[in-house]
Amino acid sequence: MTSPNLLTNVSMDAAGQEMYQFIQELYPICRSITGSGLRDTLKRISDRITLEVHEVPSGTQVFDWTVPREWNIRDAYVKDQNGHRVIDFKQCNLHVVNYSVPVKATMTLADLRPYLHSLPDYPDWIPYRTSYYQERWGFCLTQRQLDQLKEGTYEVCIDSTLENGSLTYGECVIRGQEQSEVLISCHVCHPSLCNDNLSGIVLSAWLASYLSGIDLRYSYRFLFLPGTIGSITWLSRNEDRVNRVKHGLVVACVGDSGKLTYKKSRRSDAEIDRAALHVLKHSGDPYAVLEFSPYGYDERQYCSPGFNLAVGSLTRTPNHAFPEYHTSGDDLDFVRPEFLSDSLTKYLRIIDILENNRCYVNLSPKCEPQLGKRGLYRSEGGKIDQHCRELAMLWALNLSDGSHTLLDIADRSGIQFSVIRDAAAALAAHGLLKEIAYSSKGLV
Amino acid sequence: MTSPNLLTNVSMDAAGQEMYQFIQELYPICRSITGSGLRDTLKRISDRITLEVHEVPSGTQVFDWTVPREWNIRDAYVKDQNGHRVIDFKQCNLHVVNYSVPVKATMTLADLRPYLHSLPDYPDWIPYRTSYYQERWGFCLTQRQLDQLKEGTYEVCIDSTLENGSLTYGECVIRGQEQSEVLISCHVCHPSLCNDNLSGIVLSAWLASYLSGIDLRYSYRFLFLPGTIGSITWLSRNEDRVNRVKHGLVVACVGDSGKLTYKKSRRSDAEIDRAALHVLKHSGDPYAVLEFSPYGYDERQYCSPGFNLAVGSLTRTPNHAFPEYHTSGDDLDFVRPEFLSDSLTKYLRIIDILENNRCYVNLSPKCEPQLGKRGLYRSEGGKIDQHCRELAMLWALNLSDGSHTLLDIADRSGIQFSVIRDAAAALAAHGLLKEIAYSSKGLV
Amino acid sequence: MTSPNLLTNVSMDAAGQEMYQFIQELYPICRSITGSGLRDTLKRISDRITLEVHEVPSGTQVFDWTVPREWNIRDAYVKDQNGHRVIDFKQCNLHVVNYSVPVKATMTLADLRPYLHSLPDYPDWIPYRTSYYQERWGFCLTQRQLDQLKEGTYEVCIDSTLENGSLTYGECVIRGQEQSEVLISCHVCHPSLCNDNLSGIVLSAWLASYLSGIDLRYSYRFLFLPGTIGSITWLSRNEDRVNRVKHGLVVACVGDSGKLTYKKSRRSDAEIDRAALHVLKHSGDPYAVLEFSPYGYDERQYCSPGFNLAVGSLTRTPNHAFPEYHTSGDDLDFVRPEFLSDSLTKYLRIIDILENNRCYVNLSPKCEPQLGKRGLYRSEGGKIDQHCRELAMLWALNLSDGSHTLLDIADRSGIQFSVIRDAAAALAAHGLLKEIAYSSKGLV
Repeated sequence: MTSPNLLTNVSMDAAGQEMYQFIQELYPICRSITGSGLRDTLKRISDRITLEVHEVPSGTQVFDWTVPREWNIRDAYVKDQNGHRVIDFKQCNLHVVNYSVPVKATMTLADLRPYLHSLPDYPDWIPYRTSYYQERWGFCLTQRQLDQLKEGTYEVCIDSTLENGSLTYGECVIRGQEQSEVLISCHVCHPSLCNDNLSGIVLSAWLASYLSGIDLRYSYRFLFLPGTIGSITWLSRNEDRVNRVKHGLVVACVGDSGKLTYKKSRRSDAEIDRAALHVLKHSGDPYAVLEFSPYGYDERQYCSPGFNLAVGSLTRTPNHAFPEYHTSGDDLDFVRPEFLSDSLTKYLRIIDILENNRCYVNLSPKCEPQLGKRGLYRSEGGKIDQHCRELAMLWALNLSDGSHTLLDIADRSGIQFSVIRDAAAALAAHGLLKEIAYSSKGLV
Repeated sequence: MTSPNLLTNVSMDAAGQEMYQFIQELYPICRSITGSGLRDTLKRISDRITLEVHEVPSGTQVFDWTVPREWNIRDAYVKDQNGHRVIDFKQCNLHVVNYSVPVKATMTLADLRPYLHSLPDYPDWIPYRTSYYQERWGFCLTQRQLDQLKEGTYEVCIDSTLENGSLTYGECVIRGQEQSEVLISCHVCHPSLCNDNLSGIVLSAWLASYLSGIDLRYSYRFLFLPGTIGSITWLSRNEDRVNRVKHGLVVACVGDSGKLTYKKSRRSDAEIDRAALHVLKHSGDPYAVLEFSPYGYDERQYCSPGFNLAVGSLTRTPNHAFPEYHTSGDDLDFVRPEFLSDSLTKYLRIIDILENNRCYVNLSPKCEPQLGKRGLYRSEGGKIDQHCRELAMLWALNLSDGSHTLLDIADRSGIQFSVIRDAAAALAAHGLLKEIAYSSKGLV
Repeated sequence: MTSPNLLTNVSMDAAGQEMYQFIQELYPICRSITGSGLRDTLKRISDRITLEVHEVPSGTQVFDWTVPREWNIRDAYVKDQNGHRVIDFKQCNLHVVNYSVPVKATMTLADLRPYLHSLPDYPDWIPYRTSYYQERWGFCLTQRQLDQLKEGTYEVCIDSTLENGSLTYGECVIRGQEQSEVLISCHVCHPSLCNDNLSGIVLSAWLASYLSGIDLRYSYRFLFLPGTIGSITWLSRNEDRVNRVKHGLVVACVGDSGKLTYKKSRRSDAEIDRAALHVLKHSGDPYAVLEFSPYGYDERQYCSPGFNLAVGSLTRTPNHAFPEYHTSGDDLDFVRPEFLSDSLTKYLRIIDILENNRCYVNLSPKCEPQLGKRGLYRSEGGKIDQHCRELAMLWALNLSDGSHTLLDIADRSGIQFSVIRDAAAALAAHGLLKEIAYSSKGLV
């Protein structure tokens, strides 16, 4: 059987605008790996999709880690002698080192300096710093701000709490015909940063919303997690169900102007890897492919050797490769609706391959069947398209020997997956091909 | 044991002339996939080699196909109002759409136009068109002819018959020591077209004649078939014997000035593929290698998944890649004796490898044997040749461990097959190597 | 467990000087495949390392070969009519064809000419010629010497003996924790030639001396053999112990200015091949890699199909690839201490990999362990170094699944072996990795 073509009836322009607007809505919230900002974000996501929100108490052991205490912040500032806020959390939540312990003090500039972080090479950007697992505090500011600070005494305040509470994450499951799952995971712990990773959040939410209206082959599990500790927590609580995950993608940095970049799963030739490569190769756009490395986003956990899931990551410019990364430069101007929608197109095409990658056997394997008498050959139609369709049918017949999936056939023939898929569907409709089950390995 | 070197005692110049003259003889005949032109062609081939001619009745079911009715044509023309033949089958048999049903009519030019085919981009060439499986009629003419046709009434006549009869094909089998066969297949259904495929016919006939005088390892089966329906018919009638075919080549387009092009079998690394690549690589001439695709000549049928025979195709410029293809431009000037003989040389070298590709074991596998005391090392002789011969002996000794054929050794060492073959023969003569049987896989 | 880093506490400059001085000491001796020059050389090596010297009687059958009679030479010359030595063995031992039978005669220049060998293209160099297995005599001289010989009568004398005696070779074994051996083999049969192969002798001797003071994993077997017949003799006498050899290198031509060149073992992907490639790739210096061929030094015998040992060869410019090869141009100026020490560095790095290439399993394979709480992550230290160390730990954790050795991990990550080794040691010290045995195959 064939799943619907996922790209029909989608206005990619509207989708881009919709995703961008959702970024605008989420941008001001001060998120962290725990706390009310994270909860607020999940709440807004659950306005759009059916989201199960989980709370995991501080102190819970999750493999080698412990769920940390919950962090909340109300205000933070540095005031000069005139009572003027020279650094103000209310202006930008990046100004405070994320997970700072509370502080209330008066200090000279000299004493304050070790707690101040700036970027001399990018004097207009505020850096994004965190200290989740060591109790510290600090402020981040632009180099220009720092340079203007005069010697003197400053009032320093971080009105935060670090107390027992819980870690929050959201899960959206869409049931398909199979129990096997496609995992879509994004991190939701970054404060006012757009590409990393509001872009990932909004693309995931859009996808979840869209797929929930479609008759699907696979079940889809969308995870909205705080980075690292969130995926570790989820894996720890779902250890016995993890083997359902057949394919997966980590979604991040999908809104910038850079080219698409696919980072392979640890397995390196899993079906998800081959599907992503096929889409990028046939996109006509520039792209990059990276081998797996155990450094990056939550694929680090999904691809740890005890799980070794077939999870890759599709980004535009990868983390660390754009100067705006983890700075206030990653703002609402750095991401654009058209890049979001272009990324979405690729995600949809990959999912379309996963949904439609079937294995057929040729029921007439000795010599070619006579396509002409069935109206499948040299029938009317645009000449070039028609030749490509015919070629696709010949390839589908030739390689449907029980050891090639449609993706194998598309890759070997060099023909786009969707053309092979349609050719196979036409041949199956005429009784020339018959679908069979195939193992997740996808033999070539 | 060693088979004779197939290239000694052959005058390639004479062979080229002989093949070209046979093309000249066959050129005027109006062939089709059935009928008297095809029979006449096979008759002339059987003047040169022992050919078994088969007749398969119209209506015979051959896998998914049905042998069509037999087509014969005596005359065809379009006469203008003055009774002048403006299109005349007797001048060139391409003028009529091959397999045209009979027609006798008087028509205006306007009514006639849909039945006329020309090539606006090549105004001096008549296109070659067929309609085997749909009952149509039509004429082909040059664009210049078409442009000169004046409005008015024309007398249209195609004096053809499409009646129950039979499909004819020829088979020439040369018995070797083994039952395993090398299949050489060419199509014989094209009318006055030289490269595609009179060149293939004459090269096959020359080869069959030559090999019938030689003591061979393999049996050779030459098939002279109408394209597609012919190979399907042969496979259908020989289904239980097909597994004897160990290697095969489809011969076509071997007379033009282009470089040699080898299209791999579906298996892609069969011994025939490796032998052909070895020959082309060591030829010193430019060449091209194409991966298998299920589009082309009768390899489509031999390589269908139900057979998956080790059949490649060696052409010069492949079909569709020269503008003269399927036009009157593919004439006696388009092919030349020297290109035919160059193609033949490569075919002979490939067959020479198949015949002589043996597997030996080193009977003195621990350390090198002392070649010097056997007169095999640094004996007299041209210095460079001698060094290459010695190297070939060292390679043959080193890799004759039961898992490498001579072709494996030639490929790994980078030394020409014939030099390795001679080195192995010398070592075997001195009791240092012993031939063993090897599977058709040819381990590396 | 981890073996010591072999490159600490070595002064490479001093090692280079030491090796060069040993070359100077050995240079004047007239060595051959048997005889007193060979014995004298082994004696001087045994002044530096514990060497077992073996004597194998002439006539002993060693596989397909026979140990030849022993050759010794006292003097050789050609005197002109004035009694002046125009060719004098005492000036350079290359002047006599090695293994020349004794001769005492008076001859005209015309009669003498067939016995004289020179190099017209290199008129200042004396060629090096041998005739071990055919009884001949001859003189080698520079082209300039030859050109100056006047017609007339010459007194010819070669005061040599070719008598029953023995073939001599030396063996130095250093016991490690394992019975498995690393074989280091060099040829010791060349007379006054520096790169080929005094350089190999002195590097081997230096290595043997150095390793004898270290607690080692493997046992090391150093062989100082006459070329070809020596390794055949050794293999013949040690046939039942050969399977202990797990890795091996043939040492030759390691003192010239050319780039390092690694010639792979016949297996082509043995651990020794991968270790050598890793070292060369990460050296930052230019290098070359050659596929195995059965032509070269004693790897020909070690890699014969009946043994197929994992023995490669690491040289600088390979034999035959420098014009000084086998001429008097391969003298004390052609090799330099700095090139010897550079070659030694690479040998030590390769051995360091062999010694330290272990296989670990991650004891915390589900998700990453929390490195931070163990002080392994983002602790103080130079930032870039620290990031590389952290990456190395992540790679070691990720790939330590029982099917990757540290070398596999280094190769896949692109990180230098020593960094991976240290990362694994740190993780093992914290109980995160545990060493397991692994087969010599080194799975990837």
